[in-house]
Amino acid sequence: MIHIIETKERFVEDNNLEALRVNKYLNEKHVFFVNLMASPGAGKTTLLVKTIEALKKDYRIGVLEADVDSSIDAETVEKAGAIALQAHTGGSCHMDADMTYRGLLAMDLDHLDVIFLENVGNLVCPAEFDVGAHKKVMILSVPEGDDKPLKYPLMFTISDCLLINKIDTKPVFDFDETKLENNVRKLNEKMPIYSLSALTGEGMKEWVSWLKDSIEKWRTTL
Amino acid sequence: MIHIIETKERFVEDNNLEALRVNKYLNEKHVFFVNLMASPGAGKTTLLVKTIEALKKDYRIGVLEADVDSSIDAETVEKAGAIALQAHTGGSCHMDADMTYRGLLAMDLDHLDVIFLENVGNLVCPAEFDVGAHKKVMILSVPEGDDKPLKYPLMFTISDCLLINKIDTKPVFDFDETKLENNVRKLNEKMPIYSLSALTGEGMKEWVSWLKDSIEKWRTTL
Repeated sequence: MIHIIETKERFVEDNNLEALRVNKYLNEKHVFFVNLMASPGAGKTTLLVKTIEALKKDYRIGVLEADVDSSIDAETVEKAGAIALQAHTGGSCHMDADMTYRGLLAMDLDHLDVIFLENVGNLVCPAEFDVGAHKKVMILSVPEGDDKPLKYPLMFTISDCLLINKIDTKPVFDFDETKLENNVRKLNEKMPIYSLSALTGEGMKEWVSWLKDSIEKWRTTL
Repeated sequence: MIHIIETKERFVEDNNLEALRVNKYLNEKHVFFVNLMASPGAGKTTLLVKTIEALKKDYRIGVLEADVDSSIDAETVEKAGAIALQAHTGGSCHMDADMTYRGLLAMDLDHLDVIFLENVGNLVCPAEFDVGAHKKVMILSVPEGDDKPLKYPLMFTISDCLLINKIDTKPVFDFDETKLENNVRKLNEKMPIYSLSALTGEGMKEWVSWLKDSIEKWRTTL
């Protein structure tokens, strides 16, 4: 086995400082910020649409859509009832804190309660670049397999909540939820894990309830 | 819509020069090199195992396994009959040409005919970093969806061959192959597209045949 290491500590440190600034700015504005991360095709946008529908009675919702290119997701979440802003990363594989700050400045924070960042579909880079969110939520979909914590450990380590999506497709995949959970617990002892299908709605209630609780708890700290 | 651009042209230019050197070195060694790219969970390792099994009578096969961490894939492909080398990228989201060169130097090229790089699971970064391969092959799996060319256009543009994997799961997903192909053709007019299931073996023959033809054609140019 060989080890091939790239040094990027300095970039990450600078980014962490900027992420603290973003977080402080959002607290001043009373806006709760969720960083949503997953592989391409894990179902981020569908989950976001269903989450917006469940929250929009109680909260004014904004979405910062990060994409390498295209604006199809921004159009989709606007239809669901959120205010969306499309950010093109111009080839970059993740949003960093500075890009996020520039995106937030272009949004009307005085009229929003909750903002979701739909990060670029990628299990590596977004895990390394904190964007100042109050909660980091990752989605893993059943078709991706139960071995992913072994291969993308940082994402599972830094997340505050894991959503296992597309559980309606379990009959056609060899996906062992107990094995996944055991792999996750070696990296992250306490994050809640919710199994759901954004498509059928199964399990959405528990995730939405966790999210609402997190928002209300954070509000008491302001 | 806002545009958030990071400049990384210089890194990419340096990498392109190094990729040319890698390619020249492999031609001297008479080793054909395939860069295999896909999202996490698209089925790269299973496809690789089945491809090794189909090729190993005719070619001596090596695999350079790139992973952020873990060595599970190297063990799997060795069982299938290839010589594997595990490279840990130490957090990096892709292999670049220099990392690849260092990996190749650690392999016994005098006793290999074909080497596959199983790149880090990611549809963004590996597309930007040429590693000097003779063929760039991307896998898209049915569960990821038919809209991926719109969201990860560079990967579809630079690839020489597209494999649509997990077609055995089509009954449970809303995946329109014609729509996918139309989206692909806007970016890449001529790359061959093979629909297959590495799990069931369906469609593997056509892909393996294309690969063998590519190897034999390249040999006539040496």
